[in-house]
Amino acid sequence: MNAENKLKELGLELPPAAKPVANYVSAVRTGNLVYLSGHGPLRNDGTMITGKVGTDLTLEEGYEAARRVALGLLGSLKAEIGNLDKVRRVVKLLGMVNCTPDFIDQPKVINGASDLLVKVFGDKGKHARSAVGMNSLPMNISVEIEMIVEVED
Amino acid sequence: MNAENKLKELGLELPPAAKPVANYVSAVRTGNLVYLSGHGPLRNDGTMITGKVGTDLTLEEGYEAARRVALGLLGSLKAEIGNLDKVRRVVKLLGMVNCTPDFIDQPKVINGASDLLVKVFGDKGKHARSAVGMNSLPMNISVEIEMIVEVED
Amino acid sequence: MNAENKLKELGLELPPAAKPVANYVSAVRTGNLVYLSGHGPLRNDGTMITGKVGTDLTLEEGYEAARRVALGLLGSLKAEIGNLDKVRRVVKLLGMVNCTPDFIDQPKVINGASDLLVKVFGDKGKHARSAVGMNSLPMNISVEIEMIVEVED
Repeated sequence: MNAENKLKELGLELPPAAKPVANYVSAVRTGNLVYLSGHGPLRNDGTMITGKVGTDLTLEEGYEAARRVALGLLGSLKAEIGNLDKVRRVVKLLGMVNCTPDFIDQPKVINGASDLLVKVFGDKGKHARSAVGMNSLPMNISVEIEMIVEVED
Repeated sequence: MNAENKLKELGLELPPAAKPVANYVSAVRTGNLVYLSGHGPLRNDGTMITGKVGTDLTLEEGYEAARRVALGLLGSLKAEIGNLDKVRRVVKLLGMVNCTPDFIDQPKVINGASDLLVKVFGDKGKHARSAVGMNSLPMNISVEIEMIVEVED
Repeated sequence: MNAENKLKELGLELPPAAKPVANYVSAVRTGNLVYLSGHGPLRNDGTMITGKVGTDLTLEEGYEAARRVALGLLGSLKAEIGNLDKVRRVVKLLGMVNCTPDFIDQPKVINGASDLLVKVFGDKGKHARSAVGMNSLPMNISVEIEMIVEVED
């Protein structure tokens, strides 16, 4: 089962590519690698999920925020490469969780993104990653993730 | 207009390559990619801009700090590749802002670096990036940025 | 002196590859680059070194934690590529130190990893790096480092 069909089967709709509001872009391709900018957790209504996980958000809400970040990353990736079936491998995530200094469950939050990627891409979705705590993120978004993907020639 | 001429036109002078004081280097090339170490905001007198943005520094001072980090990154890049006209594309920035947990304007700070890169390189300077908040940085520097650049063979 | 012999000469034993407990892996190879997931400081007894450096841990203990993270990274790298003599260059580290907002000696902590890499690989171990402060890390580990390595075909 390829990635585009899998998305349909899962009933998932990708948002359009993120629109940076400054002198940068949402994705850059170099050779067979695509570098995706840090994305935030976009709701269907176009607003962002904000607040610190563990304080303003439960762990479950943090997981859902990370899942939404992954959808946004795939939306920007699709805009860059045209078709997600061209993905050879999800290489690496840096998953950043907005939290207080005593919150230590970042991996369980970022699993929301990792689980989605493996659902969509299967073994090709299994990536290296770091999941870490941040004292603050832009606009107080709850999760920010950047991603590197290897794509076909 | 190429990058080296653009720098002259803008009246910008690059500092020499950063000199790491430990067992690491300021830049490593692998294939067509150059990975630049995290750089801090160097003043002309060789000291670093320190303090937390939003508390010790205004947003405008943070922007200027990020601009200076970008100059330092270009200084180290030039030392590595000899001539900035060899740059094919600025691929990716990780922009880290020293701040308190309630500061949420990291993108406006890191724009200081992004704007300079696009001024110098034009469209080739448009990069993927993340702009995030850190609870502390080495020597209390206000901004630290690491960069990946694609260069000619 | 090659890396495998150097490890023996130094009397260093590598732990087995880190076993991620979620939908990700400890290492992904793409082309000649291997991306290692963020690793923590594993003790010989399989537990992790935890606590904030500068508060719960001294600088020296932080250095030792970073050294242990590097051993763990090499263990995962060896599991991926079979033999550490295939390493062409350690390209990049992102070294993250769990600390309070007033701790500013992250580079001295991450030196524990950098020094080990240069001991094992010589000049090929000299890498680009960032060393930064985090308000929290998974399971309260004291140091987390992710690494990119260039390997032979």
